Amino acid sequence: HVRKMLHHMPAPDVAFLLESTPAKSRAVLWQLIDPEFHGDVLEELSEDVRNGIIRQMVPEKLADALEDMDTDDLAELLRGLPDTIFQQVLHSMDEQDRVRAEQALSFGEGTAGSIMNTDTITLRPEVTVDVILRYLRLKGEVPEDTDAFYVVNRHDKLIGIVPVIRLLTSTSDMTVEELMDEDAETIPVDMPESEVAKLFERYNWISAPVVDSEDRLLGRITIDDVVDIIREEAEHSMMSMAGLDDEEDTFAPVMKSTGRRSIWLGVNLVTALLAAMVSDLFEATLSQLAVLAILNTIVPSMGGVAGNQTLTLVIRGMALGHVSPSNSRWLVSKELAIGALNGVIWAVLIAGVVAIWKQDLMLGAIIAFAMMVNMLAAGLAGATLPLLMKKLKIDPALAGSVILTTITDVVGIFAFLGTATLLMMP
Amino acid sequence: HVRKMLHHMPAPDVAFLLESTPAKSRAVLWQLIDPEFHGDVLEELSEDVRNGIIRQMVPEKLADALEDMDTDDLAELLRGLPDTIFQQVLHSMDEQDRVRAEQALSFGEGTAGSIMNTDTITLRPEVTVDVILRYLRLKGEVPEDTDAFYVVNRHDKLIGIVPVIRLLTSTSDMTVEELMDEDAETIPVDMPESEVAKLFERYNWISAPVVDSEDRLLGRITIDDVVDIIREEAEHSMMSMAGLDDEEDTFAPVMKSTGRRSIWLGVNLVTALLAAMVSDLFEATLSQLAVLAILNTIVPSMGGVAGNQTLTLVIRGMALGHVSPSNSRWLVSKELAIGALNGVIWAVLIAGVVAIWKQDLMLGAIIAFAMMVNMLAAGLAGATLPLLMKKLKIDPALAGSVILTTITDVVGIFAFLGTATLLMMP
Ligand SMILES: [Mg+2]
Ligand SMILES: [Mg+2]
Ligand SMILES: [Mg+2]
Ligand SMILES: [Mg+2]
Ligand SMILES: [Mg+2]
Ligand SMILES: [Mg+2]
Ligand SMILES: [Mg+2]
Ligand SMILES: [Mg+2]
Ligand SMILES: [Mg+2]
Ligand SMILES: [Mg+2]
Ligand SMILES: [Mg+2]
Ligand SMILES: [Mg+2]
Ligand SMILES: [Mg+2]
Repeated sequence: HVRKMLHHMPAPDVAFLLESTPAKSRAVLWQLIDPEFHGDVLEELSEDVRNGIIRQMVPEKLADALEDMDTDDLAELLRGLPDTIFQQVLHSMDEQDRVRAEQALSFGEGTAGSIMNTDTITLRPEVTVDVILRYLRLKGEVPEDTDAFYVVNRHDKLIGIVPVIRLLTSTSDMTVEELMDEDAETIPVDMPESEVAKLFERYNWISAPVVDSEDRLLGRITIDDVVDIIREEAEHSMMSMAGLDDEEDTFAPVMKSTGRRSIWLGVNLVTALLAAMVSDLFEATLSQLAVLAILNTIVPSMGGVAGNQTLTLVIRGMALGHVSPSNSRWLVSKELAIGALNGVIWAVLIAGVVAIWKQDLMLGAIIAFAMMVNMLAAGLAGATLPLLMKKLKIDPALAGSVILTTITDVVGIFAFLGTATLLMMP
Repeated sequence: HVRKMLHHMPAPDVAFLLESTPAKSRAVLWQLIDPEFHGDVLEELSEDVRNGIIRQMVPEKLADALEDMDTDDLAELLRGLPDTIFQQVLHSMDEQDRVRAEQALSFGEGTAGSIMNTDTITLRPEVTVDVILRYLRLKGEVPEDTDAFYVVNRHDKLIGIVPVIRLLTSTSDMTVEELMDEDAETIPVDMPESEVAKLFERYNWISAPVVDSEDRLLGRITIDDVVDIIREEAEHSMMSMAGLDDEEDTFAPVMKSTGRRSIWLGVNLVTALLAAMVSDLFEATLSQLAVLAILNTIVPSMGGVAGNQTLTLVIRGMALGHVSPSNSRWLVSKELAIGALNGVIWAVLIAGVVAIWKQDLMLGAIIAFAMMVNMLAAGLAGATLPLLMKKLKIDPALAGSVILTTITDVVGIFAFLGTATLLMMP
């Protein structure tokens, strides 16, 4: 029954079903899918889920599924295989597919070349519209999402682009040379995919040609693959900030998920112990004034939230390309000013609450001072940390938030317990 | 000099420059832009930045800038205006634009209708390819990103779609009826934009027709606007989880940013006070055993991180549509199992560290027990909170993380100080 249902489903829907299924049951579902559609479904799966499936497939069957797959998807999929299986799969492929795969893999992961397809239709400048129309009618079919033809000279150099629609609005005796856009934008094959995504997003492209350093046409990139990159990049920050693996599969097995997440918990344990050690320095004070122990978490907590707001905003600004060396000084002063303003607001509030709750004006003044100091530290750390980490080529989304909260914890505890020790201890 | 540079820049680049500029200097830059391009630049700006600019424009000039703007962008922009200015702008528009604007605004915000354009080319089923080609050559131009023509009957009902490319691969005597896809997917005008985005992403569409409840063609949605929605939605979770306004402008003025962020800090202050009050219940214990005050933050901190990992994963799974009532029970058990496993791992570790550091086996056992309890609470709360909040129609990204850390703080403190009071106090 399920098999029948699966046979009538388009590949993207089958992929969606697999994504929403616990990892264990995926293998069973996979067996029920007509092997002829295995390739189409694999193309649509996310990295983590796909890797789980292909590692359980027999290399020969996997090689079969890879026939006719888009070059970009083929390369991405092969990159997910362990080395030994990779060799077996490559060995099981027919000559033509193997050559194609090796070529696709020769472009670095995460570059324009790795998300490019080679299914371009090229034209010569001297050909007329009439000839092209006759050729296309004879051919009968063109690759999916073809919205432009590429004009190359005899050295394969890209010299222009003809949008498909222009063939329809031109008279049949016009030549390609007369029709083409000569100043069309091209993408260098080694451009990072995140740059490619920014260009597509900014200029609302549907597809764009990829060229080598001599302007020779290598292939094209289409918007559907760019959409996946945009989604991945936007999610990357959120997942990394929570200490999750980029593409963590919601329905992965318990052991796998626990292992991946434990790195972050381990780092957090170390920083929590660090904060405890700072408190430990004030053991004498704490043993005399239990009220300090009770209030000790408030200032670090507020600093952590304020700092994370700044950090998140700067990380997003950097991802969008809005934050650059030219305006980062302005941004740091702005966040410092917000920190100062926050400091005043929350210092006054917490001073009032504590003075009333604990009937102690001095205690209110001390926690207010600590709040001021920590809010400034939060603004400064939140704005400068990601800029600094970028310079050191560390991903700010990955480690920024642990380092930040360690700073706000330590500063908060020092400011609060330190001032209290100075002013309240005999 | 800057004015000259701006004149040679494409509108998306000017928009990018404005986005990367502190709010105060934007007004100056804006004055330097040729008013003829004001509309094109406004189309490309993000909501927050655009609203800042249009509120400072004279209504008549704004009305001029809105001429020729795409219907969807026009509606989005007008929605960002305060009521009084909105009326003035509408009044300053010419008749045709006003009608178009009022129609666009009649579709609810965030629906397919609000991101739809009306620039479709429609065909009748009985027309031949030859006639269409002659018509298009006469017309000379078609709307941007036209990748399909829509076939309607005499009641404006959509009965099929003809991809542009198909006109090129068909013989000139074929009729539209013979060429068209009859089972092409359509989008109901009241579908939420997030659903629209999911469809585009899943099926790799470039554009799709929008219809009313009687299948009459109303317009089309194009991928460039869907890309913006995908980016917005993915960012929404990250920004909300940090307590930031959805589209907060990185370079907004200090006062505006402080005001927006203070809501979250206020909520956090209340929850921090709540946690302090829980500690306050154990004042007698804390005043006798300062070591408990020093270790009191470790268990809540670990619970907060583990819970946030689960929460983030479930929120993303829900945004992608992977989490549904049918698999949520499985997901909750999985996260509980991870919580138990995490509990064991980190309980053993922290017990060892504390027993050695503080030379106290009992203390190690107590903190280990509290860690176990809090990790289970974190897994349970992280998985069930977003599901529960969705049922109550509260945005889980917005409030989930405060509620979660309040739970892990309270449970962590209770488990640690409570057990310590029971076992270590005379
Ligand atoms: Mg394909
Ligand atoms: Mg765009
Ligand atoms: Mg592709
Ligand atoms: Mg793809
Ligand atoms: Mg990828
Ligand atoms: Mg990845
Ligand atoms: Mg436009
Ligand atoms: Mg729009
Ligand atoms: Mg897709
Ligand atoms: Mg549009
Ligand atoms: Mg738009
Ligand atoms: Mg919007
Ligand atoms: Mg908190």
